Amino acid sequence: MSQSDCLFCRIVAGEIPSEKVYEDDLVTAFKDINPAAPVHVLVVPKKHITSLAHVEEEDRALLGHVVLTLSRIAASQGLDGRGYRLVVNTGDEGGQTVGHIHFHLLGGRRMGWPPG
Amino acid sequence: MSQSDCLFCRIVAGEIPSEKVYEDDLVTAFKDINPAAPVHVLVVPKKHITSLAHVEEEDRALLGHVVLTLSRIAASQGLDGRGYRLVVNTGDEGGQTVGHIHFHLLGGRRMGWPPG
Repeated sequence: MSQSDCLFCRIVAGEIPSEKVYEDDLVTAFKDINPAAPVHVLVVPKKHITSLAHVEEEDRALLGHVVLTLSRIAASQGLDGRGYRLVVNTGDEGGQTVGHIHFHLLGGRRMGWPPG
Repeated sequence: MSQSDCLFCRIVAGEIPSEKVYEDDLVTAFKDINPAAPVHVLVVPKKHITSLAHVEEEDRALLGHVVLTLSRIAASQGLDGRGYRLVVNTGDEGGQTVGHIHFHLLGGRRMGWPPG
C-alpha cells in the first residue's frame, strides 16, 4: 500500500513532518507547504494511488470518504459561510507535482475563474 | 430530490437541453456551455445537493461514484495520457454559480497554478 520513495506515503507514515489538520484510518490532511490561499490543505488517502487516472472500482468508497472528509475539514476551518474550492490535479497537463493522489482544499480568499 | 427552480435539476430532467457525454442512475455529465478548456465537462449528481458544504453522511457512496465516474469520463475523452483537473466550486468565495453541486472536469490544455 505504501511506497518508500513517495513523498506523501512518507508524510502519511510520519517519516517526514507535516502540519496535520486531520487524520483517520483512511486519510491524512495537512497544510500545503506552498499555500496558494490563506487556507490550503491537502487531503491524502493513506493508500498509495498514483493519480485520479489510476483509481479502480475498489477505491469507490475511499473516494467518497475523501470528499466527505474534505467537506468536514472545510467546515472545521471556518469556510462553510465563505466558500472554498476543491482541486485535484491529474497528470502532466493537470499540474500534478506529487505522484500520490491528493485533494486540494483552498479557501480564505475569493477564487478566480478560470481555475488555472 | 429535484427542485423545479434549479437549472441543473432541469438539465438532469431533460427540461433544458444539454450536450450530454454520460448518464447513469446517479449522475449526468454534460459539456459546460462556457468552457474554460478544450474539454470542460460537468459531472452532476441527479440528487439535488446545494453544494459540497451541504453533503451529508448519506451522500458518501454518491460522492465516490461521482469521482470514479469523472475519472472514467476523463479516460473516455482521451485525457488519461495528458492529464486533467477536477474542480468543485463551493459557495461565494469558491466561485460557485449554480446552487447544485457539480464537479468540473477540465483538460485538453496545460492548467496553470494557482487554480484561480
